[in-house]
Amino acid sequence: MQRKIISVATSIIEEAVVESLQKNFPESIGIADLGCSSGPNTLMVISEIIDTVYASTNKLGSPFPEFRISLNDLPGNDFNNIFISLREFYKKLKMEKNIGPEGCFISGVPGSFYGRLFPKKSLHFVHSSSSLHWLSQVPPTLDSSFLQPLNKGKIYISKNSMGSIFDAYLLQFKRDFSLFLKSRSEEMVDDGSMVLSFMGRVSADPACEESCMQWELLAQALMSMALEGFVEEEKIDSFNAPYYAPSAMEVTSVIEEEGSFTITRLEAFEIDWDGGAPSNNNVHKNPNTIEKYYISRGQQYSKTIRAVVESLLECHFGTEIMDELFRRYGGLVDDYFLKTRPKSIDLVVSLTKKGLIVEPTM
Amino acid sequence: MQRKIISVATSIIEEAVVESLQKNFPESIGIADLGCSSGPNTLMVISEIIDTVYASTNKLGSPFPEFRISLNDLPGNDFNNIFISLREFYKKLKMEKNIGPEGCFISGVPGSFYGRLFPKKSLHFVHSSSSLHWLSQVPPTLDSSFLQPLNKGKIYISKNSMGSIFDAYLLQFKRDFSLFLKSRSEEMVDDGSMVLSFMGRVSADPACEESCMQWELLAQALMSMALEGFVEEEKIDSFNAPYYAPSAMEVTSVIEEEGSFTITRLEAFEIDWDGGAPSNNNVHKNPNTIEKYYISRGQQYSKTIRAVVESLLECHFGTEIMDELFRRYGGLVDDYFLKTRPKSIDLVVSLTKKGLIVEPTM
Repeated sequence: MQRKIISVATSIIEEAVVESLQKNFPESIGIADLGCSSGPNTLMVISEIIDTVYASTNKLGSPFPEFRISLNDLPGNDFNNIFISLREFYKKLKMEKNIGPEGCFISGVPGSFYGRLFPKKSLHFVHSSSSLHWLSQVPPTLDSSFLQPLNKGKIYISKNSMGSIFDAYLLQFKRDFSLFLKSRSEEMVDDGSMVLSFMGRVSADPACEESCMQWELLAQALMSMALEGFVEEEKIDSFNAPYYAPSAMEVTSVIEEEGSFTITRLEAFEIDWDGGAPSNNNVHKNPNTIEKYYISRGQQYSKTIRAVVESLLECHFGTEIMDELFRRYGGLVDDYFLKTRPKSIDLVVSLTKKGLIVEPTM
Repeated sequence: MQRKIISVATSIIEEAVVESLQKNFPESIGIADLGCSSGPNTLMVISEIIDTVYASTNKLGSPFPEFRISLNDLPGNDFNNIFISLREFYKKLKMEKNIGPEGCFISGVPGSFYGRLFPKKSLHFVHSSSSLHWLSQVPPTLDSSFLQPLNKGKIYISKNSMGSIFDAYLLQFKRDFSLFLKSRSEEMVDDGSMVLSFMGRVSADPACEESCMQWELLAQALMSMALEGFVEEEKIDSFNAPYYAPSAMEVTSVIEEEGSFTITRLEAFEIDWDGGAPSNNNVHKNPNTIEKYYISRGQQYSKTIRAVVESLLECHFGTEIMDELFRRYGGLVDDYFLKTRPKSIDLVVSLTKKGLIVEPTM
C-alpha cells in the first residue's frame, strides 16, 4: 500500500524536480525525505529523484550536481538498518550512473518535522510520503478529558462525534501543518519544491467513511473485546489517535494562511483498501510446512494496518491483546468488504517556496 | 581510557577552535566528529566545541552561529543509540545556552573516513579521536600470504618481524592517512581546523613496546590457547591486525607530502595502561549478590581492550573462545604490570587547511 502511494506520487515528484531544475540548476542540490521510515521503500523516492536529476542533466547538458541527501524520521526509527543498506545503494549508483562517493552524501537526521531540522536555505527539494496525517500529539482537549471522556467508545472522529471533537482535531492539524510549513520555508531555497502525500479526504465532512472507517472498525474491535472483559472500556475512552485526514480545502487554507508556499498542484487519489491486489497476492507460504494457505482480504488489510499502528496501540493497551485485536479487526474488515469496496484518499500536494517579494519603491 | 584521551586533547581542540574563529567567524559553522562511536563519550567533544564557540561569541560580541554537526562512524555503528540520546542533549543546550532547535542541527553520516563523506567546503572544524590508528584494511601482502604466513605466531608488528612486515604496515598507513587528508581537504573551508588524536609512538622503532605490547600479549594469549588445542595455530598465523601506531615523524611526513594542511601543533602524550586510575576504581559490584569483588589491573585493562577489539577478533576466531582469551590476556597483562609501568602513546596533531595559494604574476 505504501509502495502504491509512492508510485501514485511519482509523476508529480518528477514534474516538480524538473520544473525546479529549469529555474535554477545548483552545483550542490539539497534533498530531504521526511518520515523516511526504515524498510524496502525508504530509498525508493530518493532513487527516483536522482534518476530525474540525472535525466535532466543529460538533457540540459548541465554538469552533474553534488547530492546532499537527508533522511529524516523520529529518533526511534531504525536508522541502523537504513545505514547498513546504503552500501548496496552507493554500489548501484556507481554502476548505473557512475556517481561516486564524491557525488552523493547521505545522512540521517533524527527529529520531528514539526519544527526545524535543517540549516537555513539548505534544501532544494523536500519530499514526505504517508507521514503528515500523524499529528504531533493527541489534541490536548481530548487528551486531558480522562475523567469525563469526550469520545466514549471511539478512538478517532466518528459519525456521532460532538462538534468539539471535530474542532479539536482540526485545530491540532492546523497548528501542526502550519508549523511544518514555516519550518520548511526557513530551510528551503527560494523556488525550491516540495511534494507531500498523506491520507486525507475529498468530502467536506470530517466524519466521512473514506477518512474514518479504519479507526471506526478498530474501535469496534476494541469495544467487542471490552464486552468480553479483555480490555477496560475506560482504556478505550481515554485513547484517541494522534491522526487527522484533512480535506483538500483544509490543506489549501493552511498553506495560504501560512503564506510561504505557492500550490502548484493538489490531487486526490483513491486507494483501494486492498491496493487493487489480485487475489493470488493473498497466498502466503507457511515456512514451517511449505504448505500454502490463504488469508482473507480483511486479514490482509489488518496486517497492513497493524504494521503501522501497533506500536502506538501497544503503548496504551499493552502487547498482550494485539494478536486478538487484529484478528477481530480483520474479521470486521471482511464484513465491511462484503458491503462496499472501501477506499482511502491519498492527497498529493506539490508546492513551490515563494521567492523574496521586492516591494516596489514609492 | 577513551575519556582520558579526549581530555588530553581538550585544550588543543579549544585552541584550534578559537584560532579558527579569530580568522573567520562564519554565520553557519560545519563541524564533524569522525569515528564518533556510540556511548557516553560520543557527544563529549561536540559539547566541548559548542562551549568554546559560545565563549568566543560572548568575548567577540559576534552573533551566535548556526551549528551543523555531523557524527560519523562506520555503518555498523549503533547510530540509533546516539539518536535516542539527542533529546537530552538538545534539552541541555536549550537550558544552559538558550540554543534552540533552530540553532543546532545534528546528523549521522555513516561511512569510512578513508574517502569522501561530506559535501565540498562544508566543514569548518573536524575532530577525530581514537580512530585513525585503525587502517582501512590489513596490509594486502600480509592478508594474501595465507599459504606461507609471513607473520607466524604474531598478529601485529613484533620485535623479530621481517622488514617486509614493517614496510607493509607503513605503506598501508601512508596510503590510508594520505587519502584521509585529501578527502578532508576537499570537504573543509580554507583556514579550517582539524584536531586528530590516535595511538602512535615517539620511538622511531615500529617494534617498540609502547606501540606493540598490547598486540604482543594478545598473540601470546592466543598462542597459549593454540598449544592446548583451543585455537588452530594457522588461524593465528593468518590473522593480522588492521592497525598501525605511527611515529610522530611518519605522521609529519605524510601530512607534508599530501600538502593540503599546515601542522599547527603535534604532541605526544603518555597514557598509562591503567589510566592512572586509583585502585579502588577496580571495585566492581556483582549485580547478583550485591557483593563487591576486586578485579586485578590486568583484568581491568583486558576488559577495556576487549570492548575495542572483540568484534574484530570474533570475525576471525569465533565467539566461543573470547571469554577464555581475555581471561588469559588479563593474566599476561598482570605479569607485565609486575615488570614495568606500561604506557601507550597518544599523538595529538592540530592542522590548518591551507588557503588557495595565489601564484605571483610574472
